[in-house]
Amino acid sequence: MSSAKPAATRSGEPISRGAGARQRVLRAALEVLDEHGLPGFTMEAVARRANAGKATLYRHWQSAGALLIDAMDATFQPFPEPDTGRVETDVAELLTAFVRLLEETPFPRLLAAFVDAAERDPALAALHADLTERRRQPLLAVLDRARERGQLPDHLDAELVTDLLTSPFFYRRFVAHRPIPEGMVDDVIACVLPTGFPSRRSKSS
Amino acid sequence: MSSAKPAATRSGEPISRGAGARQRVLRAALEVLDEHGLPGFTMEAVARRANAGKATLYRHWQSAGALLIDAMDATFQPFPEPDTGRVETDVAELLTAFVRLLEETPFPRLLAAFVDAAERDPALAALHADLTERRRQPLLAVLDRARERGQLPDHLDAELVTDLLTSPFFYRRFVAHRPIPEGMVDDVIACVLPTGFPSRRSKSS
Repeated sequence: MSSAKPAATRSGEPISRGAGARQRVLRAALEVLDEHGLPGFTMEAVARRANAGKATLYRHWQSAGALLIDAMDATFQPFPEPDTGRVETDVAELLTAFVRLLEETPFPRLLAAFVDAAERDPALAALHADLTERRRQPLLAVLDRARERGQLPDHLDAELVTDLLTSPFFYRRFVAHRPIPEGMVDDVIACVLPTGFPSRRSKSS
Repeated sequence: MSSAKPAATRSGEPISRGAGARQRVLRAALEVLDEHGLPGFTMEAVARRANAGKATLYRHWQSAGALLIDAMDATFQPFPEPDTGRVETDVAELLTAFVRLLEETPFPRLLAAFVDAAERDPALAALHADLTERRRQPLLAVLDRARERGQLPDHLDAELVTDLLTSPFFYRRFVAHRPIPEGMVDDVIACVLPTGFPSRRSKSS
């Protein structure tokens, strides 16, 4: 990276030219993954697609796995942390953004490829675990803040509640292969968050 | 292949000889899937491994997808429906059996392969949806019975509760890549089931 030269390169266009070039490689990586799946995801294939040199790619990414993670990260921006004053509304905002992501290409396809690949490759599983960990942060932060404000009980297990709030959407999409119904976000929140409002017993918020 | 004949056949051993032969093909299918993943899962490969003819396989299974589903089904017997008298205990029994399954080979690896393949093949997604649907039945039955007995509220959405009870374990295993901690079954039940006992607020049952 320190040898980044804006012009002149031995192997295709330099990717060190800045964000544009980096984006080009990441986009190429997503295209390769989408078309060929993980078995076809190699540094060679991405380099070819991005019209960059394989050696150049290796200077920026240690492995195809590392490149894949960056490409996954590039498929969406982290959700901004909402602060509406009500924990249910904050959580609903985050989950709604997440559901939208699950209904969009290419994220679900990439995630599905990851689920399979991680079973066969512990290094990839560790990378995926990190990625998931980062994506949980906004929700964990919202729950922690609500606890500090007395909107949720002190002893609430925020990690478990984060699992419970997000996992039904993964499950619907990737295991049950059912549509995510209108109102499911509200129903999940009403079921999981230990607050009096919206009523735990009511079906809609 | 066609030269292996314990008893006269055009294309390998007849698999119609009964349960033993069928089991042999299903076992071969699982082995092929485990070794080569879904890209290598073809009728040819399974026939070769099972020492059976491809045409013979096609007489019993319309497609590689149909064979795959049967092979998945063969990886475990359906959980017997518990009836301990307490809904929490019944649910805990089913979830514990499920967690054991998630920690065993080859089920998780197969499921991961399915998640990916279903993204690319709608027919496979439909088959996987059916499989999931069948596997939800014991839990749904336990919840319905508890409702009839007045142990759960009448208006409980058993489908949603089934999602909430099972999905955290899928998520842990395939998305977060974290171990499933001792006591997670009890914690999930305490969080999700709208009953007074075990206390919603206690961490252990």
